[in-house]
Amino acid sequence: MIKIGVITASDRASAGIYEDISGRAIEETMRLYLTSAFEIVYRCIPDEQRVIEETMIELCDEQGCCLVVTTGGTGPALRDVTPEATEAVCEKMMPGFGELMRQVSLKYVPTAILSRQSAGIRGKSLIINLPGKPKSIRECLDAVFPAVPYCIDLIGGPYIETDETVIKAFRPK
Amino acid sequence: MIKIGVITASDRASAGIYEDISGRAIEETMRLYLTSAFEIVYRCIPDEQRVIEETMIELCDEQGCCLVVTTGGTGPALRDVTPEATEAVCEKMMPGFGELMRQVSLKYVPTAILSRQSAGIRGKSLIINLPGKPKSIRECLDAVFPAVPYCIDLIGGPYIETDETVIKAFRPK
Amino acid sequence: MIKIGVITASDRASAGIYEDISGRAIEETMRLYLTSAFEIVYRCIPDEQRVIEETMIELCDEQGCCLVVTTGGTGPALRDVTPEATEAVCEKMMPGFGELMRQVSLKYVPTAILSRQSAGIRGKSLIINLPGKPKSIRECLDAVFPAVPYCIDLIGGPYIETDETVIKAFRPK
Repeated sequence: MIKIGVITASDRASAGIYEDISGRAIEETMRLYLTSAFEIVYRCIPDEQRVIEETMIELCDEQGCCLVVTTGGTGPALRDVTPEATEAVCEKMMPGFGELMRQVSLKYVPTAILSRQSAGIRGKSLIINLPGKPKSIRECLDAVFPAVPYCIDLIGGPYIETDETVIKAFRPK
Repeated sequence: MIKIGVITASDRASAGIYEDISGRAIEETMRLYLTSAFEIVYRCIPDEQRVIEETMIELCDEQGCCLVVTTGGTGPALRDVTPEATEAVCEKMMPGFGELMRQVSLKYVPTAILSRQSAGIRGKSLIINLPGKPKSIRECLDAVFPAVPYCIDLIGGPYIETDETVIKAFRPK
Repeated sequence: MIKIGVITASDRASAGIYEDISGRAIEETMRLYLTSAFEIVYRCIPDEQRVIEETMIELCDEQGCCLVVTTGGTGPALRDVTPEATEAVCEKMMPGFGELMRQVSLKYVPTAILSRQSAGIRGKSLIINLPGKPKSIRECLDAVFPAVPYCIDLIGGPYIETDETVIKAFRPK
């Protein structure tokens, strides 16, 4: 069974102060994108770098998620530490993801440059940071997801198939 | 009172061999941009990484500048060490600033890719590296400044207002 | 005599399992680009970070190559370690090269974001990572090479002249 991790890093959502609509938006997007059967492993945690790192490690190493998508904690504020946690647990960073997501978000808001979101590889798992806002989540996923199934092929993960009427996975011949 | 730091890193300007027109260009641009009252804290120093770091720390921690803008020292030459100094004193790097500034400069010159300029957060201060040439300074500031006041809000700095006929600060609702 | 290093990082090409058409593509492109006399120093090695680092050091420090171009090992797979080797031997990283190359490759394939290629400075040498596919090699070199001769000027290397009907080197006045 393909497993996809969703981590919401948010002090307020994890304290129950508001509902985690961002994490749900990622899950819904995955259900629209994928025709392969998959299971979501969901965690909603505070903006603590150590907790984020431990959760990423659990989802990659113990749960065996081939893809872990985070939302929240990518801005410049003191409690925004998701990119630092990502870099700490990954062996390889993938700068192209953050570059493309910021470029796409810049079409909508000039504050897109404040997002420090990145992506990286831990073992056989790809970790991608998304911004916190549901609307930006879909814009960013639409931009980078065509490259995700092939990336997971290359790191030894499962073969993921998408609904081509929604999003087309690209695999070079 | 809002304080904005301007650091010119240049062996020749700091030795008095030529006038620092780049530092003055930043100050003039700030006077055009901002309607909030502010004070410039200006330093012109040699391209020594230790000196640049100490000056950034002084302007952020002692002077309390919410924004520190540097010019010079971002190229590939041996004495170009401003990005390294910036990274050394910042807790968080903001890759979107450098990406956007290089993209904008690429419209004018293919050598824009040689600029290693970056940005980062130290405490309640945003540090932005600009290139050394006055013309590029304005192009780069015009590109990134719409996101600067909101960034300073997010890190706990003062509320900065701009002259919207010159540059429009964007704050998401 | 101007020396240009070409490093192919490939387990299979270095084991003789297939021919190194990528390394040859770089050499051919240099012959098309340059009117200055030059010599190619060629190495085809396995995807071992230590070996790649040692080869880069040899080509920069002992052979005196002003430019070292690599191909291969920039993807997300376990054996792809060329960007890590590059970062380990360089004093300065040049993020603008990777950004522009990924942006150009994105016009052709959405998987361009999977390429982690970078560039950096070691002493008086510029090291540039290119992707592994011959077609992408030319696209990427066409994008960044206009800035290469001026970069080599700035780090104290030889004055390189190009055939302007093929590629135009840009040197700011």
